[in-house]
Amino acid sequence: MLDKRPYEPLDVGTLPRRLAAAPGLAHRIGPAEHWRVREVGDGNLNLVFIVEGQLGAVIAKQALPYARCVGDSWPLSLERSYFEYHALVRLGQRDPGRLPQVHVFDQEQALIVMDYLTPHVILRKSLMAGDVLPLLDRQMGQYLARTLFRGSDFAMETAHRKRDLALFAGNVELCGISEDLIFTDPFCVSPRNRVTPGLEEDAAALRADRALKLAAAALKRKFATCAETLLHGDFHSGSVMVTAQDSRVIDPEFAFYGPMGFDIGAFLGNLLMAYFAKAGHDAEDHARAAYEDWILQLVEGVWSAFEAEFARLWRTERTGMLGLAELFEDGGDAEGAEAALAALLRDIWRDTLGFAGIEMHRRILGLAHIPEFETIADLTLRATCERRALAMGRRLMLQPDTFSDPRHVSRLARSVRTV
Amino acid sequence: MLDKRPYEPLDVGTLPRRLAAAPGLAHRIGPAEHWRVREVGDGNLNLVFIVEGQLGAVIAKQALPYARCVGDSWPLSLERSYFEYHALVRLGQRDPGRLPQVHVFDQEQALIVMDYLTPHVILRKSLMAGDVLPLLDRQMGQYLARTLFRGSDFAMETAHRKRDLALFAGNVELCGISEDLIFTDPFCVSPRNRVTPGLEEDAAALRADRALKLAAAALKRKFATCAETLLHGDFHSGSVMVTAQDSRVIDPEFAFYGPMGFDIGAFLGNLLMAYFAKAGHDAEDHARAAYEDWILQLVEGVWSAFEAEFARLWRTERTGMLGLAELFEDGGDAEGAEAALAALLRDIWRDTLGFAGIEMHRRILGLAHIPEFETIADLTLRATCERRALAMGRRLMLQPDTFSDPRHVSRLARSVRTV
Repeated sequence: MLDKRPYEPLDVGTLPRRLAAAPGLAHRIGPAEHWRVREVGDGNLNLVFIVEGQLGAVIAKQALPYARCVGDSWPLSLERSYFEYHALVRLGQRDPGRLPQVHVFDQEQALIVMDYLTPHVILRKSLMAGDVLPLLDRQMGQYLARTLFRGSDFAMETAHRKRDLALFAGNVELCGISEDLIFTDPFCVSPRNRVTPGLEEDAAALRADRALKLAAAALKRKFATCAETLLHGDFHSGSVMVTAQDSRVIDPEFAFYGPMGFDIGAFLGNLLMAYFAKAGHDAEDHARAAYEDWILQLVEGVWSAFEAEFARLWRTERTGMLGLAELFEDGGDAEGAEAALAALLRDIWRDTLGFAGIEMHRRILGLAHIPEFETIADLTLRATCERRALAMGRRLMLQPDTFSDPRHVSRLARSVRTV
Repeated sequence: MLDKRPYEPLDVGTLPRRLAAAPGLAHRIGPAEHWRVREVGDGNLNLVFIVEGQLGAVIAKQALPYARCVGDSWPLSLERSYFEYHALVRLGQRDPGRLPQVHVFDQEQALIVMDYLTPHVILRKSLMAGDVLPLLDRQMGQYLARTLFRGSDFAMETAHRKRDLALFAGNVELCGISEDLIFTDPFCVSPRNRVTPGLEEDAAALRADRALKLAAAALKRKFATCAETLLHGDFHSGSVMVTAQDSRVIDPEFAFYGPMGFDIGAFLGNLLMAYFAKAGHDAEDHARAAYEDWILQLVEGVWSAFEAEFARLWRTERTGMLGLAELFEDGGDAEGAEAALAALLRDIWRDTLGFAGIEMHRRILGLAHIPEFETIADLTLRATCERRALAMGRRLMLQPDTFSDPRHVSRLARSVRTV
């Protein structure tokens, strides 16, 4: 155990003294007297240190009591570190090896020490660089199926699930950021919003679009009331680190009990935006077309892998109180269980499309934009790319029932891109 | 404050000693030396005492650590008294005067001292006796609107709602009873089930009815995951006490955060069963027809009053983070807010019908039957009445979208009753 002392932001001098007493750490990375410590975070939301020893390295992530990145002086409580820790442990148990392992959690210091991922890079950067990642669809689809299924009443003992529901109901502050920035601000006039010059009229039209606002309101209600499973809560391409063969999920501090489609939709929405951004960066040639095709295959592949793994878990791990084998297999109606699975997957797919659509709006109309679009220097071209993403996102939010499977999503993306 | 001492079931001798120190009680009912105490509960689930003094009377309800009524030796934790207390306070604040006021809560003794309701009788008995209660529809519709709206993120400050969500997530045991007895057992073979002789084939057919089982599974998922508002959780006609002019809601120990339609549906389902039971008791004459008509008017009136009050609250108290006035009124689109209300009411109505239908199944196929049917001495006639209720319940579960408003429900009830 580390001694309790009041929170203070650590630095390369104080961190090793704080960690020297942590059990097992020297065993993992080597004796403390040889540690080399570097601060590598951008300092906006968290301090991030790499601690390297003779045997290996770890990351030490310490929360700061504010978030300069979301507003100039937006205070954020240190408690988010507590939720991130609990989410890292749970999600890591549900898909072993897919999240960094936690070695130390120091609640007083809002400090998590975990695996240093190397040579991994942020997926968003990798997509911008045009890397093809042949295993990513399968790894992400499986990750989503495993964490979403295993955190739900389809698999968990319900008293345990309800304890976790109560625990993560405390993550009010970060849920509040999502409630405001994803579901509210983009659809109304707010000083936190920002749009690319040239998109002002589009933004005004969308904010006057009653059908779209009703869809946003319904999705916000789903987000806030459907406590289905433990979500990552911020599962975009900046929360995944990759190599050519591997992928890891990081930063689940927005974790809470919410609808399965929210994590899947956020991820697919970001992939679709990566697709629409390509035309803003590269000349229209064979290489770009091939990469665009690959992104759409990725969208399709993530859903297919999710669906396949979810079905496997449904058939083999459906032990929770929503599993209801009593009504189906136990009564000789195994086909009924397959029909229940199909109905459930339809619902998740529908939610996924809606949440993907809203993610595409909030990244263009709201506060937090994405580098894929932001780095398109030609503002007219940037606005064109974003306008296409908005058109696609609107369809996903308003007519999710018209997409029977992800190939229809790809088809629409291709047709919207040529507008 | 009462002193803390280990739980022990109280009796007419020990209760006054326990309560003598309770602040304010003597002020309310008169000095303790003149109290007269009677035990009036059936002793199956709780001890219920009436404490009468010179100035008035109170009820003292103490939980017992088992529930003989649900199973011969079904242990139940005393903690349910804690959830009942917290629900009584919250629901009472949301619809003032509609629930008994709590005067003492003694957590160690699982003891709640509250208003003694007199001359109120249980609504179920009143319906069986054929009483016409002219204000009941309005009072119950308003109660449902006020408690369901005001306990949700349409009205509450979300940090407060999330704290309550976490608190009631602890009510695992009583939720578990609902999960088993309402949503699972009735649709499979279980030793806890019981059906009226003559209904065995109907029960077997329903348990082989895949569409019905899928609907039950979807409703169970809604019940378990849709943490929309604080529900009473067991809102049937045995949880309401009435006089000709007044009605009060009691016994909210099953309270938890769930879907709005669950409370409304349980109530309407029980009214519909009261309707179908009439033919088992009274000769088919003008008086019976008039009372049957009144019950159906009650069904329609409860929903109408709910809808009207919910709309009023929507327009005047929509201050929670799901209210989204930012998207509608604040942006000059007041009609958009009305459209959002209409969409929400459609969803609640749909859920209500499904939950009404499942309530009608579980009271006939499951463990906990209702006296309206149980007191029909002629078993063939009882089975006929129950068969009609099942036919109606099945339609409500399978085709909720075909009922545009409660008059369609009444129409179906009338047509099913003559089969």
